[in-house]
Amino acid sequence: MSFKLVAKDKQARAGVLRTAHGEINTPIFMPVGTQASVKSLSPNDLIEAKAQIILGNTYHLYLRPGDELIRDLGGLHNFMSWPKPILTDSGGFQVFSLAKLRKLTRDGVEFSSHIDGSKHFFTPEKVMQIQKNLGSDIMMVLDECVPYGADYDYTRSSVGITTYWAKRCREFYPSGKQLLFGIVQGGFFKDLREESARQITNIPFDGYAIGGLSVGEPKAQMIEFLYFTAPLLPEDKPRYLMGVGKPLDILEGIRAGVDMFDCVLPTRNARNGTLYTSKGKINIKREEYKRDLSPLDPECNCYTCRNFSKAYLRHLYTSRELLAYRLNTLHNITYFLNLVNQARASIFNGTFENFYNHIKSIYTC
Amino acid sequence: MSFKLVAKDKQARAGVLRTAHGEINTPIFMPVGTQASVKSLSPNDLIEAKAQIILGNTYHLYLRPGDELIRDLGGLHNFMSWPKPILTDSGGFQVFSLAKLRKLTRDGVEFSSHIDGSKHFFTPEKVMQIQKNLGSDIMMVLDECVPYGADYDYTRSSVGITTYWAKRCREFYPSGKQLLFGIVQGGFFKDLREESARQITNIPFDGYAIGGLSVGEPKAQMIEFLYFTAPLLPEDKPRYLMGVGKPLDILEGIRAGVDMFDCVLPTRNARNGTLYTSKGKINIKREEYKRDLSPLDPECNCYTCRNFSKAYLRHLYTSRELLAYRLNTLHNITYFLNLVNQARASIFNGTFENFYNHIKSIYTC
Ligand SMILES: [Zn+2]
Ligand SMILES: [Zn+2]
Repeated sequence: MSFKLVAKDKQARAGVLRTAHGEINTPIFMPVGTQASVKSLSPNDLIEAKAQIILGNTYHLYLRPGDELIRDLGGLHNFMSWPKPILTDSGGFQVFSLAKLRKLTRDGVEFSSHIDGSKHFFTPEKVMQIQKNLGSDIMMVLDECVPYGADYDYTRSSVGITTYWAKRCREFYPSGKQLLFGIVQGGFFKDLREESARQITNIPFDGYAIGGLSVGEPKAQMIEFLYFTAPLLPEDKPRYLMGVGKPLDILEGIRAGVDMFDCVLPTRNARNGTLYTSKGKINIKREEYKRDLSPLDPECNCYTCRNFSKAYLRHLYTSRELLAYRLNTLHNITYFLNLVNQARASIFNGTFENFYNHIKSIYTC
Repeated sequence: MSFKLVAKDKQARAGVLRTAHGEINTPIFMPVGTQASVKSLSPNDLIEAKAQIILGNTYHLYLRPGDELIRDLGGLHNFMSWPKPILTDSGGFQVFSLAKLRKLTRDGVEFSSHIDGSKHFFTPEKVMQIQKNLGSDIMMVLDECVPYGADYDYTRSSVGITTYWAKRCREFYPSGKQLLFGIVQGGFFKDLREESARQITNIPFDGYAIGGLSVGEPKAQMIEFLYFTAPLLPEDKPRYLMGVGKPLDILEGIRAGVDMFDCVLPTRNARNGTLYTSKGKINIKREEYKRDLSPLDPECNCYTCRNFSKAYLRHLYTSRELLAYRLNTLHNITYFLNLVNQARASIFNGTFENFYNHIKSIYTC
């Protein structure tokens, strides 16, 4: 077994996930390293921030520099000099959100590169082969992330395709050093979520993800479907809520029994000057920080908070210095990693609900 | 005495310069931290690269965030969390190269900010006050860097103004914890260089700089005036060649008896993908590096060279990843610092001329 639950506090879980590049303590947040780099951070920064696993984007790496190139150069870990676990997505999400001229068939999805317009075709087998070439520790099946607002019939048919693709992925890679996770879809229809969960969990994956949430729906609906879907997944396998989210969303996920999270929010917001602190979100651009000698977050122990004042960070940001993006990103990633770490500790202590309420009092959304 | 010569090899000198924030072993290269940041590098990176002193730009810091703000926040060292020495220029060079609507009088220079067009007036006393507020270890006098092509009469009159301003700077700051360097000008007229050197070295400064070289003149002329001017400066004071230069230029400077150098070349070129190695300059964008698993420079021990291949650096650069700028800059700065360090060692060994010829065989210009 690659996954072991080590503590529970109501539905919230603490676990250990074993991968080819080491163990991951869950719940965990995975910084996003789209193009073989978590934007502005070095591997050393990520290790200092206590990142345990990062995410790589199959769509991007396939297009540039190419998965075969990365394979020839020793795999993604070697290429980017990252010694710890990597999860790669299937590329499906970017095909639907970023690529042009998509054409979905039962066999796969045709698309044009957003970089040079070149034509490509992703099948379940193709995205497995790409992820094999990348050599990630956790691979994801190809799925269709149904857009928000899709009707019942479309969603139902899409669930069928997602299951069909999931089977083909598992058949292509029945077992090996890389773990493979299935993805539950079903849009915002409970019977379809149930049907998708039943079909996907019938396939022997190493973990199960909840896809298709945080795609534009109202917050309350996201929460409703999160709490509805998580219990449909097997207790003894890791659960991954894809592309979520804000600090409170992550806490909701943990409360619903989810173990793994990823989101571009901390890195993207860092580059916009939006920073997460133990007192809430701040925007470092604000005039009020011009003479503020205090660190971003006195409760944070990251390199940024240990060494620099808000006044300096504001100066770097308003002067568009490259160092701004890095110091901000390092802090935000540290905040998200501390958040899930504290959640884990509270699960061991049986005080998760208190911690959840505490975060809810700081981050109202 | 703040400066001590510890070894000589013909004209090349090894020294130790004592400042309020520690000793500097010369010859030294000073990375440029224009806006209170050496672009893309953290103080930790600079320390890892063995930077001993960095340069801050008075013009930029005066405009943004403001020297009084920096003074109120504890000075430039504290503001940017840099514990080692800082040299600040007088701002004059940027006024002449960057600001708009300049008007030079005997009293100073009026200009408009390149940021918001606001009007400002720099006098010798004003730039001293700004540098006092910044709290740098080495301050520079206000001078006029005569543009290349200026005629004899203009240059002669400019030498007079530069001397007059230098006196006013020394009078404003007769002594104290901060060192103050004078600047020799004189364009490309040997008698004016001599006159300027005589006048400036008559004022008791802590060090003497050669200004007005590398301003667009042919290489041979630069070299001629470098070797002509350096011996005009007192033997027992540090000598600083401002804004120079390429690796070979720095070696020429050391060979002429200069101790200190600064240039934006390693940092700016890093951001353009041009990297300095023990085998010469390379451009990391080139197709030939696509599958190159070797480090940038096997003789370099920087974080970049210890951890990443040319193939990865090329990928980061062509993907416009922020990490590219940083890893490239870290390497280039390390290269320049190693260069002057090796020069220093060769002066102790009496083998500087060999080292100079070695670099000359690699960098033809
Ligand atoms: Zn922090
Ligand atoms: Zn290097």
